[in-house]
Amino acid sequence: MVFTPPHPLLYRPLIENALKEDLGHGDVTTNNLVPEDLKGVGLLRAKQDLILCGIKVAEEVFRIVDSELLFTSFRKDGENIKRGEVIAEIRGKISSILKGERVALNFLQHLCGVATYTKKFVEKVQDLPVKIIDTRKTLPGFRVLEKYAVLCGGGSNHRFGLSDGVLIKDNHIKACGSVKEALRRAKNTIPHVYRLEIEVKTLKELEEALEAGVDAVLLDNMDPPTLKKAVQIAQQKAPHILLEASGGVSLENVREIAETGVDLISIGRLTHSAPAADLNLKIVSVSIANIEDTSESR
Amino acid sequence: MVFTPPHPLLYRPLIENALKEDLGHGDVTTNNLVPEDLKGVGLLRAKQDLILCGIKVAEEVFRIVDSELLFTSFRKDGENIKRGEVIAEIRGKISSILKGERVALNFLQHLCGVATYTKKFVEKVQDLPVKIIDTRKTLPGFRVLEKYAVLCGGGSNHRFGLSDGVLIKDNHIKACGSVKEALRRAKNTIPHVYRLEIEVKTLKELEEALEAGVDAVLLDNMDPPTLKKAVQIAQQKAPHILLEASGGVSLENVREIAETGVDLISIGRLTHSAPAADLNLKIVSVSIANIEDTSESR
Amino acid sequence: MVFTPPHPLLYRPLIENALKEDLGHGDVTTNNLVPEDLKGVGLLRAKQDLILCGIKVAEEVFRIVDSELLFTSFRKDGENIKRGEVIAEIRGKISSILKGERVALNFLQHLCGVATYTKKFVEKVQDLPVKIIDTRKTLPGFRVLEKYAVLCGGGSNHRFGLSDGVLIKDNHIKACGSVKEALRRAKNTIPHVYRLEIEVKTLKELEEALEAGVDAVLLDNMDPPTLKKAVQIAQQKAPHILLEASGGVSLENVREIAETGVDLISIGRLTHSAPAADLNLKIVSVSIANIEDTSESR
Amino acid sequence: MVFTPPHPLLYRPLIENALKEDLGHGDVTTNNLVPEDLKGVGLLRAKQDLILCGIKVAEEVFRIVDSELLFTSFRKDGENIKRGEVIAEIRGKISSILKGERVALNFLQHLCGVATYTKKFVEKVQDLPVKIIDTRKTLPGFRVLEKYAVLCGGGSNHRFGLSDGVLIKDNHIKACGSVKEALRRAKNTIPHVYRLEIEVKTLKELEEALEAGVDAVLLDNMDPPTLKKAVQIAQQKAPHILLEASGGVSLENVREIAETGVDLISIGRLTHSAPAADLNLKIVSVSIANIEDTSESR
Amino acid sequence: MVFTPPHPLLYRPLIENALKEDLGHGDVTTNNLVPEDLKGVGLLRAKQDLILCGIKVAEEVFRIVDSELLFTSFRKDGENIKRGEVIAEIRGKISSILKGERVALNFLQHLCGVATYTKKFVEKVQDLPVKIIDTRKTLPGFRVLEKYAVLCGGGSNHRFGLSDGVLIKDNHIKACGSVKEALRRAKNTIPHVYRLEIEVKTLKELEEALEAGVDAVLLDNMDPPTLKKAVQIAQQKAPHILLEASGGVSLENVREIAETGVDLISIGRLTHSAPAADLNLKIVSVSIANIEDTSESR
Amino acid sequence: MVFTPPHPLLYRPLIENALKEDLGHGDVTTNNLVPEDLKGVGLLRAKQDLILCGIKVAEEVFRIVDSELLFTSFRKDGENIKRGEVIAEIRGKISSILKGERVALNFLQHLCGVATYTKKFVEKVQDLPVKIIDTRKTLPGFRVLEKYAVLCGGGSNHRFGLSDGVLIKDNHIKACGSVKEALRRAKNTIPHVYRLEIEVKTLKELEEALEAGVDAVLLDNMDPPTLKKAVQIAQQKAPHILLEASGGVSLENVREIAETGVDLISIGRLTHSAPAADLNLKIVSVSIANIEDTSESR
Repeated sequence: MVFTPPHPLLYRPLIENALKEDLGHGDVTTNNLVPEDLKGVGLLRAKQDLILCGIKVAEEVFRIVDSELLFTSFRKDGENIKRGEVIAEIRGKISSILKGERVALNFLQHLCGVATYTKKFVEKVQDLPVKIIDTRKTLPGFRVLEKYAVLCGGGSNHRFGLSDGVLIKDNHIKACGSVKEALRRAKNTIPHVYRLEIEVKTLKELEEALEAGVDAVLLDNMDPPTLKKAVQIAQQKAPHILLEASGGVSLENVREIAETGVDLISIGRLTHSAPAADLNLKIVSVSIANIEDTSESR
Repeated sequence: MVFTPPHPLLYRPLIENALKEDLGHGDVTTNNLVPEDLKGVGLLRAKQDLILCGIKVAEEVFRIVDSELLFTSFRKDGENIKRGEVIAEIRGKISSILKGERVALNFLQHLCGVATYTKKFVEKVQDLPVKIIDTRKTLPGFRVLEKYAVLCGGGSNHRFGLSDGVLIKDNHIKACGSVKEALRRAKNTIPHVYRLEIEVKTLKELEEALEAGVDAVLLDNMDPPTLKKAVQIAQQKAPHILLEASGGVSLENVREIAETGVDLISIGRLTHSAPAADLNLKIVSVSIANIEDTSESR
Repeated sequence: MVFTPPHPLLYRPLIENALKEDLGHGDVTTNNLVPEDLKGVGLLRAKQDLILCGIKVAEEVFRIVDSELLFTSFRKDGENIKRGEVIAEIRGKISSILKGERVALNFLQHLCGVATYTKKFVEKVQDLPVKIIDTRKTLPGFRVLEKYAVLCGGGSNHRFGLSDGVLIKDNHIKACGSVKEALRRAKNTIPHVYRLEIEVKTLKELEEALEAGVDAVLLDNMDPPTLKKAVQIAQQKAPHILLEASGGVSLENVREIAETGVDLISIGRLTHSAPAADLNLKIVSVSIANIEDTSESR
Repeated sequence: MVFTPPHPLLYRPLIENALKEDLGHGDVTTNNLVPEDLKGVGLLRAKQDLILCGIKVAEEVFRIVDSELLFTSFRKDGENIKRGEVIAEIRGKISSILKGERVALNFLQHLCGVATYTKKFVEKVQDLPVKIIDTRKTLPGFRVLEKYAVLCGGGSNHRFGLSDGVLIKDNHIKACGSVKEALRRAKNTIPHVYRLEIEVKTLKELEEALEAGVDAVLLDNMDPPTLKKAVQIAQQKAPHILLEASGGVSLENVREIAETGVDLISIGRLTHSAPAADLNLKIVSVSIANIEDTSESR
Repeated sequence: MVFTPPHPLLYRPLIENALKEDLGHGDVTTNNLVPEDLKGVGLLRAKQDLILCGIKVAEEVFRIVDSELLFTSFRKDGENIKRGEVIAEIRGKISSILKGERVALNFLQHLCGVATYTKKFVEKVQDLPVKIIDTRKTLPGFRVLEKYAVLCGGGSNHRFGLSDGVLIKDNHIKACGSVKEALRRAKNTIPHVYRLEIEVKTLKELEEALEAGVDAVLLDNMDPPTLKKAVQIAQQKAPHILLEASGGVSLENVREIAETGVDLISIGRLTHSAPAADLNLKIVSVSIANIEDTSESR
Repeated sequence: MVFTPPHPLLYRPLIENALKEDLGHGDVTTNNLVPEDLKGVGLLRAKQDLILCGIKVAEEVFRIVDSELLFTSFRKDGENIKRGEVIAEIRGKISSILKGERVALNFLQHLCGVATYTKKFVEKVQDLPVKIIDTRKTLPGFRVLEKYAVLCGGGSNHRFGLSDGVLIKDNHIKACGSVKEALRRAKNTIPHVYRLEIEVKTLKELEEALEAGVDAVLLDNMDPPTLKKAVQIAQQKAPHILLEASGGVSLENVREIAETGVDLISIGRLTHSAPAADLNLKIVSVSIANIEDTSESR
């Protein structure tokens, strides 16, 4: 599959922020214990099986800390990594490696966590014609990266935010008065580039939406039998539209939902509740010659 | 207990960022469906039992979206909220409430998630003289808020970052050559306001550290029997120092670890793997008079 | 029609930047000539017939300069203003009014210029079932405001940028090898919320695109007879798709193009070449009492 | 003539902003259609005769998008470019070229537009001892670049903003009570580095200003016969001062105004109403070998 | 005299920065000791005789910390304050007062320091027709405030920076080859709003400059007898130009220099070496009722 | 001694800000006088004996102005420099050197000033077991750099700000009611990584603090005899605690204070009142060939 990591412009401020957050006014431990010029090698290693995501982000962390660090990655985003495998190596000043270590790991543990968790859902349904997709229930500021992690885990993306897709939700319907009126307004004014999706809570609302005409329908919190009926109704009345199941999807019930015939299953917990993946970074080599040199000059 | 929510200066950029992230170039659904002046009421409600955290953050989200929204909270951070309880009410323009809704919920679901998860650990050991503390394994940019959520859940904080406490870790010891040399360097140069803590992996390293003199020792990844021995060694050689157990702590083993007699138990998953709490926001009332007015003027 | 002005979060940095740009290290003329507390009234007036756009932006300019200024607008965005009409009144410190004057006018003259120019195109074709739409040929940083100005002038919006709509252009086709291959790739991977639009330069490419299946086709730089044929081809093969004419559209030829039956006409010059509208701001009243007071205290 | 392009520090934020504006959360078309490593060549070409301005800005756009792109410019700012000429070539990843394309063009079309339009005014009066100068009627945030474009077109600059020159305008005079009082205050307190210029609307005000003593006078909206009288008055009373004609200057009347003998003619439309210049960027070569390589590895 | 404090837009980022710098991740002392709602009164007091400068800056500091603090100032910038006088009072939450205290004092101690030090120079020469002016030797980022402090101390301002006045220095002359060539180039191209000043090191260079024509001459590091000769030469050859003495000016020699007849004396140490003024802020009243209330609710 | 200069992330915004402050909208003198491509060499030289501090900051200034400038430093931070010595050499475009000159010097003159002034205090007491330390009385925004300058001068650092150390001051005691109550609250809740320090004004308060238990005591404004008694009291009651003398310390009395036996002497004037050090930068060589070349091409 073709997918491209986000452009660094989109996450570099996040990294700079994270470095300033962790660094505070300076690393009082390292600054006082480790000679600034001492060189060494650090290894980034998986401590569990995981799907890799964020290796360019980690590289950028170390580049921002010290542009002379040499970062070599051995694996690519989206790949399966086994527990114990070395993912990347960083060579250069130990004081620089230590300043970037925690921030790089904090990004990786979350992004690999999301990718790995997504993969589990995807594997449950991979023989079925359904897509596992994300939601807007993301960590504030991390949406670009988390949605990329969903891709790395084999999932697909829903709209990014409020401006790149039309999704008429219960609160909008409440404000408009009815499904019908909401769709009428939408058709009058929404730019031609956006598809029109609406959230419904009942089969009656679904029929109302199909009559008014839409491109996709989000079926909110319906149980599998109801979802199945929704699929039948849609196939009769509007076979080209997309049906999205949403609400309360877990690893336990995702396959049953998929088997109802919906096209898309959106899952908030992919991004908001994925457990962190376990990785670490260890200094494996210290340049002794270098230690002697700097100790003399101190 | 006295605790103060973080100053808004410390998280306001995070909110502005999150609003811009979600809003993109504008809310194409709301802008096209909901008359800008339509007023209404939204209720923020818990959909599970949870410990509240972040109510001021949510209020600030709505204040930044529209300073004329009226936000009234009925509960305080740190309190137990039961499933179904209304936590706050927002009155004003519906279009403004909808623009802030997802961002406010995304902050709350994560912060309440961390507080609620912390509380579970704290309750397991609340009769013992031990503190549950956090780590630097936080989501980049969220450290101020996540550490506050740990307080709300009844936990305590470790150092914030690299600049406000000395923690000599394995990588530092590797760079210095030995525990003893690391501590020698630290004592020479570190400012008088910081306590001195060192991470050890074996009882031998612990003894080496106690001999060199420290304020606290992090016992890394030791099993309960070894932790117990560590506590005994410390009580003999340096009764005033603090012992921190760290590594692989779960709800299953936290009590066993606490019973070894350590003073502090640090747990990365409090912040990096807490499942999101479930909350929602529903528009419960739309000003009909208002709808008529605006429809006339359109 | 329902349209909502952009949220101030989306343009406030633009205003702050503009104020700093103009203010430099301070207004050396006003600071040295006008007593800081001298109060007065300024009137914002149209010096030509125009469509108003940006009145909230102007209000925000003065609010940022001095939150105690009283800004009262008499007209709304999208309305026709006649030469000589007063659009708004600003009351308060003259030194504050003068600091915001040029910046407010610079925003207004451009936004009213775009709205007014768009209106001219819209009026040429208002009896035809065609929409006048904008492009991405906007002034860097002004896209949110310029696209809003197009709405105020009666036009509609194309996609906002690279992330909220799929538009396969000649350079993409070149990189993919053919229209067919480009569309094949797009269908495999693009999220379900985006419509699929492709740019074609010949009727042959149009047919290729219709066969592969698309939602909309941009007909690039075709003359009216060719556009007419394109409309016929599309009506036969794919009556539901949208056709967009683009390239070299002027006030002279827009009606001829519209009469070919295309659904959309996109026009770069709406935003990149609209002449500025003429407005000014004059101090019409100075509080004499106030002058005497401050001159005494100097 | 010696002129230096603005320092990148002064416009880099403008570029980063523009890239984020256009890129949104990512280029959904390119990311899904063009293999990330596919290399190629793009040519930047003039589609009309124009005066070049902004080539360093365009280069910086591509450098920020991808520092490995190779940008080679064949022409310099200030030069005459003929329709069809290639101005620059960009080599590297096609996906990067496409991400920078529109932003680079949007800067160039505006800056070349201003330079080209300025040149037309300058050519009308080039045999006369008069300078064509700009005003503060610029697009918010673009003043540094637009004033540089005026230089590239052969014009000269007025003061940059409120802090680098004293210009007493009608609103200041209103606030001070009279021309005489305004000049009295100015002379008392204004730093020695600034010249003193005042705007007058009548010959009477001009005489009042000359008596009080000034360095320059802006003659606001006077017709050519009145301007001629103003020149005569100034030559008698204060031959060393500069006279600036301003207001309603067009390509049609600029020569008549210049012939009155004024020293400077300031023209707002140089910057606020210059039509965009027409340029494009086309991918002219795609590395086939490269396509094969990447398709294998996908 | 009329002078206006800098617009808050020009120093607000400096304050926000300073608050973040001091606050770090939170005030661990106050947060843990002082109940958040405890109210009280703080007094800002001079601990030495001083010239007040920066009272609006201090007010803004407290406003940013907590917009509900009530700040009342009893004195104005530029006024003489005696040791022990109360300058302002702050009422509201003690925890907020303590968070702003040090930052407000750090601004005030420096700005009052500059104003007070400037006043000493000004008083030495106040009966002579000479102005004491500042230089660009300011603390990075503080120029707007420091130059305002010089005004408060009775001094005047030189140009603000590189863009608002022409000052040809030794390095420029070196690059141009000679005083004459430097002035020739300047006259050809520099905008009409700037005066032309050149730095000379010898009387010969002065004569060269006067012959070429300038508006002002900076006499660099000349002793009083040489300065006197320079004044005589200028009075003969160009009586209208301004002469500025610069270099090595101290409280000891400033009067002797002023008596040579120069128009301006520029002094770097006004801004770069002014000793801080001594002020403090003490909590003078704590609301007991309030303490009881909050302790109950804790 | 091991000390590491602050990470550039911590001061780069300060430099960018300072460059924009000085540069304004461009260097009107250099842009108009010096051909942009003219190359040369500048020498940075001490004009007085000083302790060097900030050489990396100066290098970063020139790197940000023009990444092709070649900056070679001959000396290191913390070293003694004699009047007249060349500290560094900058080679490249003269126009770039001149744009960075003043900003680089403004940083250096202040940082070397602080280091040099600190050294004077340190030398007075260097045979005694006492440390000279700084305070939070720093210039807003400069704390990282100023505290580093104190290290370069041989001093040590107190806590950085409000978040990295607990210091209970008079205002806190006032809010808590008593020394005893303040310490009681602190012990309950403050994280284990911070030492506990309290400010006392009398020997009675000292005894109260020692009884309650603390890690360090700041003795505020006590005269040497009282300090001596404080040392005796502490040695009896709590020999391990640290005593800090603070308030009114000058070069005249620092030795007398040190001889009382206190462990630390904190001095605000190290940072807020250090006189600037005198350095300059002179262009010593201009590439003649280069001048001819560029003059031909102009």
